[in-house]
Formats: sequence, structure tokens, C-alpha cells
Amino acid sequence: MSSIILFAGKEILKRAVKTPVDLDDELPEITTPDEEETDPVAEEMFSSWALFILLFLLCSALWSSYFLQQRRIKAIHETVLSIFYGMVVGLIIRVSPGHYIQDAVKFKSSYFFNILLPPIILNSGYELHQANFFRNLGSILTFAIPGTFISSLVVGIILYIWTSLGLDGVKLEFVDALAVGATLSATDPVTILSIFNAYKVDPKLYTIIFGESLLNDAISIVMFETCQKFHGKALHFSSLFEGIGLFLMTFTISTIIGILIGILVALILKHSHIRRYPQIETCLVLLVAYESYFFSNGAHMSGIVSLLFCGITLKHYAYYNMSRRTQIATKYIFQLLAQLSENFIFIYLGLSLFTEVELVFKPLLIIITFGTICVARWSAVFPLSRLLNFLYKARFKEFVHRLGANGGIASTNVIPDEISHSYQMMIFWAGLRGAVGVALAMGIQGEAKWTLLATVLVVVVLTVILFGGTTASMLEILGIKIGVIDEHAESDDEFEIEAPRLDLNSSNNNSNGILGSRRFVPSTGIGSKGVFGGKDVRSRTDSQVSLGTFRVPSQSQLQNGLPGSLNSSSADLMNDDDEVGSDLEDLLHNGTSSNNLNSGESSGGLLGNFLGSDEHSKWFTRFDEQVLKPVLLDNLPSDKKYKDDNDGQSK
Amino acid sequence: MSSIILFAGKEILKRAVKTPVDLDDELPEITTPDEEETDPVAEEMFSSWALFILLFLLCSALWSSYFLQQRRIKAIHETVLSIFYGMVVGLIIRVSPGHYIQDAVKFKSSYFFNILLPPIILNSGYELHQANFFRNLGSILTFAIPGTFISSLVVGIILYIWTSLGLDGVKLEFVDALAVGATLSATDPVTILSIFNAYKVDPKLYTIIFGESLLNDAISIVMFETCQKFHGKALHFSSLFEGIGLFLMTFTISTIIGILIGILVALILKHSHIRRYPQIETCLVLLVAYESYFFSNGAHMSGIVSLLFCGITLKHYAYYNMSRRTQIATKYIFQLLAQLSENFIFIYLGLSLFTEVELVFKPLLIIITFGTICVARWSAVFPLSRLLNFLYKARFKEFVHRLGANGGIASTNVIPDEISHSYQMMIFWAGLRGAVGVALAMGIQGEAKWTLLATVLVVVVLTVILFGGTTASMLEILGIKIGVIDEHAESDDEFEIEAPRLDLNSSNNNSNGILGSRRFVPSTGIGSKGVFGGKDVRSRTDSQVSLGTFRVPSQSQLQNGLPGSLNSSSADLMNDDDEVGSDLEDLLHNGTSSNNLNSGESSGGLLGNFLGSDEHSKWFTRFDEQVLKPVLLDNLPSDKKYKDDNDGQSK
Repeated sequence: MSSIILFAGKEILKRAVKTPVDLDDELPEITTPDEEETDPVAEEMFSSWALFILLFLLCSALWSSYFLQQRRIKAIHETVLSIFYGMVVGLIIRVSPGHYIQDAVKFKSSYFFNILLPPIILNSGYELHQANFFRNLGSILTFAIPGTFISSLVVGIILYIWTSLGLDGVKLEFVDALAVGATLSATDPVTILSIFNAYKVDPKLYTIIFGESLLNDAISIVMFETCQKFHGKALHFSSLFEGIGLFLMTFTISTIIGILIGILVALILKHSHIRRYPQIETCLVLLVAYESYFFSNGAHMSGIVSLLFCGITLKHYAYYNMSRRTQIATKYIFQLLAQLSENFIFIYLGLSLFTEVELVFKPLLIIITFGTICVARWSAVFPLSRLLNFLYKARFKEFVHRLGANGGIASTNVIPDEISHSYQMMIFWAGLRGAVGVALAMGIQGEAKWTLLATVLVVVVLTVILFGGTTASMLEILGIKIGVIDEHAESDDEFEIEAPRLDLNSSNNNSNGILGSRRFVPSTGIGSKGVFGGKDVRSRTDSQVSLGTFRVPSQSQLQNGLPGSLNSSSADLMNDDDEVGSDLEDLLHNGTSSNNLNSGESSGGLLGNFLGSDEHSKWFTRFDEQVLKPVLLDNLPSDKKYKDDNDGQSK
Repeated sequence: MSSIILFAGKEILKRAVKTPVDLDDELPEITTPDEEETDPVAEEMFSSWALFILLFLLCSALWSSYFLQQRRIKAIHETVLSIFYGMVVGLIIRVSPGHYIQDAVKFKSSYFFNILLPPIILNSGYELHQANFFRNLGSILTFAIPGTFISSLVVGIILYIWTSLGLDGVKLEFVDALAVGATLSATDPVTILSIFNAYKVDPKLYTIIFGESLLNDAISIVMFETCQKFHGKALHFSSLFEGIGLFLMTFTISTIIGILIGILVALILKHSHIRRYPQIETCLVLLVAYESYFFSNGAHMSGIVSLLFCGITLKHYAYYNMSRRTQIATKYIFQLLAQLSENFIFIYLGLSLFTEVELVFKPLLIIITFGTICVARWSAVFPLSRLLNFLYKARFKEFVHRLGANGGIASTNVIPDEISHSYQMMIFWAGLRGAVGVALAMGIQGEAKWTLLATVLVVVVLTVILFGGTTASMLEILGIKIGVIDEHAESDDEFEIEAPRLDLNSSNNNSNGILGSRRFVPSTGIGSKGVFGGKDVRSRTDSQVSLGTFRVPSQSQLQNGLPGSLNSSSADLMNDDDEVGSDLEDLLHNGTSSNNLNSGESSGGLLGNFLGSDEHSKWFTRFDEQVLKPVLLDNLPSDKKYKDDNDGQSK
């Protein structure tokens, strides 16, 4: 502990600046030393400057994000820039005199968990493409639960062995090593969302990686806390089962809490007249969602899991009982808060590399740990993918066998992989670590705390820079489809529909068939103003909102670099969320009648539907339509067309 | 200091509970004692519970607000309920064991100034009815600047004399007494906004009181800080001028900062393509607005003033360069944040009565102080009103004299008061104190700190309960028009326009003429679906957004209790903000050609326009139209009609 080795040439700087404070970071908040304690005016001023700097960094990051998107620069990603900005400003703060700003901008795990994380999770749940998510639930849960478990165990064992060698002077108990393993197994939904959204990656891969990284966080947190409970205690073999039992209980109860709170909101909205006061309604929806998080955390359950499922339930039921204004306001507000949090987290990580004065950097340990997490992710992703492919093939054969009687699509002779090799590689590559890991590492106990925290921090930043920075190239190398317009990402923007969204992909790669829930509506007119088919009067009138204003071509068109094809005759009309439950209905509908069965991998995605539509989705959809929706929704949707279609097909 | 006298029978409780902590509140944040310091899990759990409780209180307050509005209960106001809920929960937290939650829910002035206040001010600026505000700017500034000065001086002098008598064992320097005076002169924009919005009070009175209470806060803060600078120093007569100079400089520079930042945003939005990425755009607008606040505070200027003028400038220029989505998103988000903050502040005040363990309550001092602030407000409001009436009459005579040559509206022989007696009384009555005062009182230095803080806290709560609770009755007693639909309050809600807003007032009191910027558009149809004249294609299409959905009658109609008259043939079509600058144009237009000159007080408001239209507004409007808007706006508005009208009239 005595030799403080600094990372990346910061030693000179460290020596130049006499470390101005020696605060105990165990304190939840800042304590200012005497000279400033008596001057609330100066304190107020410094806190203003600290906030000014943070917001300025946030502005810079957002502006860079705009600039990168505008110039179509793919080599550098905004998250890397955010971390870089954070590091530069952290360095400046570190070398400048005074410590108040330095204290104020330090990474605090309570801020992270109580302020920054909830909006991201809530927005993820609210924006989740439910059909895609539930269709791939098997894969997601496989990667999330056993995957995280394997990863933690591998990291824990290797770190335990390494530290036993004593080369770094760090001693770890096995449970502590396992806790670090859990910390470093939380892959980050933020980065993945941000990068994959920007590249519009194939929704199946997107959903698996996103779903995994989302649940993954919850699982790491629960595992970490379970390990912490065994800290300093003797380990028995039964501890393993105790831990697993504890974990499963936490996960289940948290899910139930989230769903119940979501249903409660739906019922309140249905049985009250609060939609007459949309401002109050919006506030209440937001507050109740947050309540699920804090209640769950307070009850020692997983707030992330509760909030995620609360968000999903809110969108699936409560959303249709809200006033139109609240529907739009909640979407926009959740998006805004999530975006601010996401950008801020990376800045925060960059800053904390320099503003955490007590960190002990051990380069060898950092290198070993970085190698370890790669090995750990490798040993989680590839065996589990093989397992999934094996299970999929077994069920597919059974499916084809059954379909043989009806003379369906049994003509397929090559059974595609559920998760192809390029997807496996991408899932491995997408294992960036994020702020959840750092926030958890703040809670590490014992004398190795500062060493471990520094190690986790650097490893996290390294993964974001190395993996995050090369994701674009990796997508190209692996030949994974990008530029796929996910209908869900668009359907939330009522005011983006006004821009003409023409289906540029249909002419060059015909890859849209992989999205089971996408429809092609023949355009009823041509022109840069955008003409929309009148599918649903209630929702489609949104598109008229600003027909009179000038609109620039949509982002996806710009990225495709084909602004000249604005007058293409095929308009890609987005699915609108207003059609209650259409996602699940689409799933059933397209699962058997889609006419876009052409590219190799898309058929894998398409055929993947059979698992969902055949077993899980159908009974849930029925139960949902016949029991839950009549009870929970105010007005039942009247789009019977798709339902009838489904009924017709299932007979 | 040794005898702690508790307020309102809390002594028994106090004795029952052994005060669990003895924290030094000078520390900016919480320090936890040893036993919990080592347990981050418990700490995390308690912080979750604390947040859960706060959000639960917020939900309860919002739900009560809905309930009161729904049942049309006017006897109790939601702010009083919020304080009450806060007090009840504060008491429960106080008597329950453990101190972590108690610490977590304590009133922290840094939270108040950095988190709770900015959204309220920003939203005020953004939602401000600019025409009304600038038309009444003279009255507002008179009440805000000399009014606050007089009030602080009166409170300061009386308190200084009282404490000199030594009955309470409290000794105050004169500057400290003056600082308390400044603290207690900050009337609260939150309560006034909330109450007056609910009752839809005559916009002129609303604007004056709202404008006063808004600027008032800024002035109190600057005065308080100026007094603090003289703390412990000898006072000279020159100090007075130094203080006034300091104050004027702060006010001017802050205003300039706010306006410049607003213009900067307008220019960035104009000259970049950021509107193609509305999510980033929305974040940036919000962040930059906050930057103005923190920058101004950091530079020892007034953040409130900067933020207010930044909000106004954003709405006046930048708003028209934003994408439609950002326009709507910013409105909704600012409203939501402001509403949450407003409700939270009162809960926070109620809570802190019990959770601040070091408060020293001196009943006699509290009673004296309460009496003093009434006297102080009286001596500010009534003389200044008389001064305003005098100036108004003098200018009116000159105006009539000049008009006499043209044969205009010179037939009026009774000159109405600019501020009638009932308005004066209401302005006096609206002098509630709010959280700004409490937050400032946290910064009081010296040994009397806890006594003064307790006094300010109780006085603030008393004013809210007594004045706030009786505002409704007072409005009735004074015969002030309520239920006036302010077009501005509605025009921000694109999705409320869908509810048919029929002009119920035009048939029973014809009082709408007082709103200079209101237009009557003959309805083009009858029916509960609401039919709107096609005034402006771009903005009016908004009203079509959800014609297909069921909509309940609007709140104002419910409050008027006349849902049966939905089929009235006269639709009150709201002015839409999309017409750039129409507010100021309306001001000119209606100032000379309004045909609603009938009720006594409304003519006062109407004729009041002559001051504005004659001197300030005209040159500013010209400058705005001919220089600023072409430079700052992306697309110049095409509604030349009113401009032509004005040009025709001014010739």
C-alpha cells in the first residue's frame, strides 16, 4: 500500500500538486475542511462552478455527438470522447488549486445509483421493443444469468490465484475476489445502446446484447451483495446454494414488485379522472416508476429489475390509459433524462480517474485483470451460444416435423444457427464494462479497496475505449448488418414521423424481413413532403402536425447518403405504438405469414419466431387479450384486423 | 440559547425522543457517525428509504392536488396540504429511531438553490406571457425594487429595535437585522403561481404579483448577500450607496448574461443542423439554460435573474429555431420539472420544521416577526401603489390631451386607477413568503443563527397557511375577477387544444376585454368535438391531433360548472405562440382598436396599454422586427397582417 504507482505518466503531475485533501471517502457526502466551512458564500460559488463545469462537459459531449453524427464520422465514438473530456477536465481540476470543485465532481456511488442509473433503466423498459425482447428472452436469460455467473467465477478464480502469488502485495479472500468478479461482469447497457442505436444494428443481435447487459447489471449487483454478505465468514459448500437461492428470490420478487406497481398505475389511471389534469398525471407516472426503484432497493431487492419491469408494464398497459399529452410527455422526458444520464456517466468516469485522490494504481494487476475479463467473457459467451444453438436445432427439428403434416415451410433443409458465429463474436466484443461496475467497486471492503477500485476504474475505461472504439470496425469485419431501421426506435417520435422515411434498404439489401414486426405500406403519393397511408386515423393525424414546416431528411437517410432518392415511391411507414398490443400480434402474424424470407441470417431470425409464437407468446397473448387488457385498459383497441388474422391462422 | 422552547406543543415529543444526533449543520452535507460509516449497504438502503418517503410525499401532494381540483374544493389549498404532509412525516421520522433518514431529508440550501429553484425560474421565464409582463413592467419593477427595499428596511429596523430590548436574549447587529429583513422580503413565486393559476385570476393582477415575486427573490438574494458582506464591519452612510450600486450592477450584469446566453442558443440553433437530432437539441437547450444559472451564480451575480431572462429570450427567439419536437419537449419538460420542484419545496418546508434538530423556537420573536412582515408589506405596497396611480394619472392626462387632436377615445371622463384599491389589497395579501427565505436564512451567520432560522421557518409556514389558505376567500371578498382564461396558459398545451374551449365568460361577464392580447374568432361549427377556425395552418393542425379520441371538458369549464353549455356557438380560440412576436403586435393592435371596452376595471387595464404602446413597446417592437429577428430567427414569420394593421394605425 505504501508505493503509490500512478497510471499513465500522472506521477509528475501528482508530485507537482500537493494533494490538497485527505478526505475519508467512506463518508457519504463531502466534508469541507475548516477554512471553508465558515464561508457558505464561497461554498455556494464553488458548487456553482462545479455544476457549471459538469454541465459544460455534458454540452460538449452532446455537441460532439451531434458533430460526429452530422459528419458521419464512425472512427471515434462519442462515449470515448466523453471519457476523454472528463479526463482532460479532471486533470485540470486536479492541478488547479483548491479542492472544493475536486470534491464536488468526485464519483459518488449514491449519486450514481439514485440519480444517474434509474432514468436509463426506466427509459430502457419504456422504449423496449417488447416483441423482440420476449421473442429472444431465452437467449437473453441464458447469457444474463449463467453467463454472468460463469464470468464472475472465472474472474474471481483467476484474480484469487494471481493475488495469492503476492506479486502486487494485494491479498484477497475468495469471496472478495468473487465480488470483484461480479463487479467486472456487469456489462454496460449504456454504451451498447448508444453504439448500436447509432449504427442501427440488426434488431435481433441488438435485443440480445441489450437485454443481456440490462439484466446483467441487476445480476451483478445481486451477486456482489451476496458476496459481501459472506465477507469475512467461512465458506461452505452450502453457501453456493444459499447464494443461488438468495439470488433467485431477489430476482423474482423484484420482478413482481415492478409488474405490480406498473399494473397499479394502469388501474389508477383507468379508474380516476386524472387524465383531465395531464400535468399532474405526467408527474405521477414518473414518480411512481421511481418509487418502484427506491422501494425495491429499500427492501433489499433489486431496484434495477423492478424498474425495468415497471417500465415494461407501464408501456404495455398504463400507456393506453394516459392522456395523449402524458403519453408524449413521458416519452420525451424519459428519453431526455436517460440521454443526459448516459452522457454524464462517461464524463463522470473520465473525471474520476483524476479526481479520486486515493486510488492506488498497480499496472500489472490492471493488465492481468483486463486479460481475465476477456477470458471470462469468452468462456461465458461461446459455450452458452453453442448450448443455445443445440437446443434451438433440437426444437427446430421437432417444429419442422410437426409442420410436415400441414405442408408448411418444411422445405428448408439447412438449419441455421440461432446465434451464428459472427453474432457470438459480436456478443463477446460487446462486453464493455460500465459505470455499474465502478459504482459497485466503491462498495468493496477491506484494505485492498483502493487498489481494486483503481483497477476496476481503469479496466472499465479501457474496455470502453478499446471495445467501444472498435465496435464499428468489428461490425464491418464480421459482416453484421447495420443501417437496419428498427421500427420501434422511430415510433416514439410523433414529430419525426413528419419527415419522410423512405425505405432505402428495400432496394439495396432487402434485409428488412428479419424484423418480424415490420410492415410495408404502399405509398399513396410521391414528394419530399412525405405522404402517409391512412392506416389509423387517431395516430396518423400526428403526421399532419407540421406538414407546413420545412423538414430536413431523416437521420437514417443522411447516413445512407442517398438524399437524392427522397422521391422513391416506397414509403416505409412505421408501426405505431398506439395500436395496443400490436407488437405481440405482429409477432404471431409475421411469424407464419411474412413474405420477406430471403437473406440467410434473416431466416434465422424469422424462424426463431416459432419458439416464441408456438409456446410462450400464444398463451400469454391470449391471456393478455382476454383477461388482462379488459381489466387494465380503459378503452380496448379496435384494431381487430390483426387479431382476426391470427385467429384465422391458428385455427 | 440554553432554553429550547418548542413551538406548538412539540415539547412533549421532544422530550420523549432523545435527540439522536448532534451533527454540525455547518457542514455542507451529511456526516454519518461511526457505526454506520462502515456499512455502505445499510447506508444505501436508508438513502433509498429516504428517497422513497420524499417521492411518496410528492405523490400524495400531487394526488391531493388532483382531488381538490376534481372536487372543486377551494377551502383548502394544496400547498397547505403539502406542508401538512411534510410536517406529519417529519414528526414520524423525528420520533422513529435512527437518524440517517432524518439527516437525508433535512432542508439543504445547496439542494434548494442548485436543484429545486432553477426549474421553477426557468419555467416561469419560458411560460411568461411576454406582452403582459412588459406591459406591466413599470408596476412590477416598482414593487420589486423599491418595494423589497422598503420591506427589508422596515423589518430590519423593527427587529433591531425589538432585539435591542433584550426580551428574548437575542442580540443582533443592524446589518444582520437587515439581512433577516431581506430574507423575509422574498415573496414566493411558487405559491402565487399555484394559487392564481388555479383560480385563473385577472391576468393583469396575476402578472404584477407574479412578476414582483419573481424579481423580488433575486433582489432579496442580492440584498442578503450585500448585507452579509457588511457583517461585522462598521457601517457608514456611504455603505448605503455602495450597497445600492452593488445591487444595480449585479442586476444589470445578470440580465445581460441571461439575454446573451439566450441569444447564443438562438444563433447556434439557426446556424447548425442540430434540429435534425431533436433529442440532442432538447438536451442542449435545457443544459445551456442551466449553464446561465450556474455561470451567473459562480460569477457572484444573480443566477435567478440570468435564468429568468435566459428563459424569456429562449422563448422569444430560440424557440422558433427549434424543431417541433424540441419545442414540445422543452415545454413539457420545463413544466414537469417546475411542478415537481414546486410541490417538493412545500413538503421540504413542512419536513424541516421537525427534522432540523437544532432549531431554537422563541414564540414571542416569531409573533413579533410575523406582525412585522405584515407592517413591512403594508408600508411597501400601499404607498408605492399610490405613487403608481399618481404617475399613471399624470401620463394619462397627457395622453388624452394628445389624443384630443385626433378625436380618439378622449370621451372618457373618469380616470380609473392603475392599481385599484382591491388590487392593492390583493397584492398585500399575496405577500406569502416561501422557500427562498428559508434557504437564505440557512446562510445567516452569528450566534443567533438557529433562533433566526427557526423564526423564519415558522413565519414562512404561517404566511403560507394563513395568507395562502385565505386567498380564495380574499379574492371573493375583494370582488376580483377569477375564472379568466389566460390565453397564454393554454397555448403551451398542444394536446389540450383538442378539448373544446368555449368562451363561457363572454356570455356572463364580458370581462375578456381586459386581456389586450385576446382575439375572438367566430366559430365555424358547433359540437362537443370542438371546431376551430383555421387561423394558421401550421399551428392549427395541432388541434387535429386527437380528434378521434374521447376528451373530457377542460378544467376551466368544469370549474365554471357549466358543462351543459358546451354547445355554445362562440369558441374562444387561443392565441398561438407559433406566431412570432404576435404578443407584442397584439399589444399595439389592441391598445387602440379593441372593441371590448365595457367593464370598469378592464378599461383600466386596457388604457394601461397606452403607456407601453406609446413609448417602450413601439421602438422595441420595431427594433425586434427589423433587426433582431432577421438576425436571430431562421424563418421569419409570415403573419404580416397585424404588422400592416399596426403600421396603418401608427401613420
